[in-house]
Amino acid sequence: MTGRISNETELIQTYLAPLAAGYSGAFGLHDDAALIASEPGFDLVVSTDPIIAGVHFFANDRAEDIAWKALAVNTSDLSAKGAAPLAYTMALAFPEAPEHSWMAAFAGGLKEAQAAFGCHLIGGDTDRTTGPLSISITAFGRVPKGQMVRRGTAGVGDHVFVTGTLGDAALGLEIHRDPSRFQSHLPASDLRFLVGRYLRPSPRVEMAAVLRGFASAALDVSDGLVKDAGRLAALAGARAEFQLSLLPLSAPARQLIAKDGGHMTALLGGGDDYEILFSVPEARIADFQKALKSVRIPIAEIGVIVAGQGVAVLNERGQPVEVGAGGYDHFK
Amino acid sequence: MTGRISNETELIQTYLAPLAAGYSGAFGLHDDAALIASEPGFDLVVSTDPIIAGVHFFANDRAEDIAWKALAVNTSDLSAKGAAPLAYTMALAFPEAPEHSWMAAFAGGLKEAQAAFGCHLIGGDTDRTTGPLSISITAFGRVPKGQMVRRGTAGVGDHVFVTGTLGDAALGLEIHRDPSRFQSHLPASDLRFLVGRYLRPSPRVEMAAVLRGFASAALDVSDGLVKDAGRLAALAGARAEFQLSLLPLSAPARQLIAKDGGHMTALLGGGDDYEILFSVPEARIADFQKALKSVRIPIAEIGVIVAGQGVAVLNERGQPVEVGAGGYDHFK
Repeated sequence: MTGRISNETELIQTYLAPLAAGYSGAFGLHDDAALIASEPGFDLVVSTDPIIAGVHFFANDRAEDIAWKALAVNTSDLSAKGAAPLAYTMALAFPEAPEHSWMAAFAGGLKEAQAAFGCHLIGGDTDRTTGPLSISITAFGRVPKGQMVRRGTAGVGDHVFVTGTLGDAALGLEIHRDPSRFQSHLPASDLRFLVGRYLRPSPRVEMAAVLRGFASAALDVSDGLVKDAGRLAALAGARAEFQLSLLPLSAPARQLIAKDGGHMTALLGGGDDYEILFSVPEARIADFQKALKSVRIPIAEIGVIVAGQGVAVLNERGQPVEVGAGGYDHFK
Repeated sequence: MTGRISNETELIQTYLAPLAAGYSGAFGLHDDAALIASEPGFDLVVSTDPIIAGVHFFANDRAEDIAWKALAVNTSDLSAKGAAPLAYTMALAFPEAPEHSWMAAFAGGLKEAQAAFGCHLIGGDTDRTTGPLSISITAFGRVPKGQMVRRGTAGVGDHVFVTGTLGDAALGLEIHRDPSRFQSHLPASDLRFLVGRYLRPSPRVEMAAVLRGFASAALDVSDGLVKDAGRLAALAGARAEFQLSLLPLSAPARQLIAKDGGHMTALLGGGDDYEILFSVPEARIADFQKALKSVRIPIAEIGVIVAGQGVAVLNERGQPVEVGAGGYDHFK
């Protein structure tokens, strides 16, 4: 099919209904509402995180990347809470009726993400808007009853860990905005890696069970390490102290920072990494380390929760480095 | 507080967190996600229906009315499915940081709606957008296991009913757009009634139990009678036939239509009524009529499901009146 999609029914039944196949409570997207059957012994975790063109992505990004990101940012929240992705609803607002080719690519990106994360589209809505394209996903995950991992329950003395590497997405965003600025700094494959970390975040779905088993608190790093750690610390009534030298960097990010120390802000305050920051009580560390052997993603111990308030990042001389307000406020 | 809200934390903790009080799984809006505890014997019904300034409401409508409508349109879907409202998430996208006074009124409207419908805010997100104000609510309701009322399960021979009155909201929208056009047609109180039906739809929360008990199919009339009945009929592989004389009109709507027959389009195709259209099998009619005695809202029998396809509205001579495509497509 070529040209623009002519009405909502066509859009839903051609491109979205196939994404609901396999989940009976989606009713093929033919009803006003979806059904999530109760599963004895499990609670439902709910996260909602819309993405808007010009705010969270660029309107001319590839449709399949936009789709992936829309679902990934929500799945990331579920993973940080120890929940296994189950389903999602999606409300789309289009500035103009999309082309068939765009919508096919968008549905393809969702299909790929669904398969990677293990969930189905179960409902939603489409509208036209005078504003930019916006994709509002609400995602649902299952967690064994009473085991959702909270954000504000870290304790003084807990060790702090983070998955993957930090700052890649913020650097990737800079490169994505103006690739020419960076062409002489890194090989093309490294630039692509960093841009990919911005465009296609990897929610840490496989961390859910480990977090349920060992984390005293967790959240995903979506607005930057300093800002998100500040939230974790504030709710715990404590202070998060990190060692700068322990913060995990990808090789390309390390190279960029070595060339220009200004890029360090990406490490401390850059958003969009969607890694998981979590705390583990001292008494559980040994068992936690054993459990990590079956986890394939890298996990770095980066600091500790101490009495006090705020967030400090200490250099090799034990002195706090300037972290500023840090982080990104999508509201400002 | 005067002036504009300066950051997301202030907005959430000052205005939104109080709306989450009383629902433990909302965690005071302090976490990345909310928890809906499983309730043995109940399924969860999920509906998502955003509203956007310039599409579903006017940007200068009163904040409390916008808030009411945002929650009402979602609660309406739950009621039509036989579910009792439980909770909702809300993603807000603002073209500029709102004034404290606006946000206080908005939260006030939500508080009023929550109390009327019986649900709590449990999570959400706020963003800035280059587009219009948008409010994306996903609402959750509980229904006894296996009892969700579907849209596509009407049978030939079923009687068709509708709650309340039809067309008021579409007329109210016309009056709201240009009150001067109507000042000589109706008393001010009648004009206010119709505008109120547009601004403040009444989800038929009290219908849920009756629908579960007797309805073979149901949906809410949000895009106009002909269009929504067409959906119900198409999924049933049948035809909906209505008697024009039986379609329920409020006294003000009846007066306006008497003055100008063109207003009849509001009755057949006008959106935003949020009444419930449902079918009851012949064999259940007697018991259904008895059960209605305890329902306080008016319910009209307006037609029947017959073999065939499409929707017909018959005049007193049994001839179909022109219904056109009917209804509103927010996507077009």
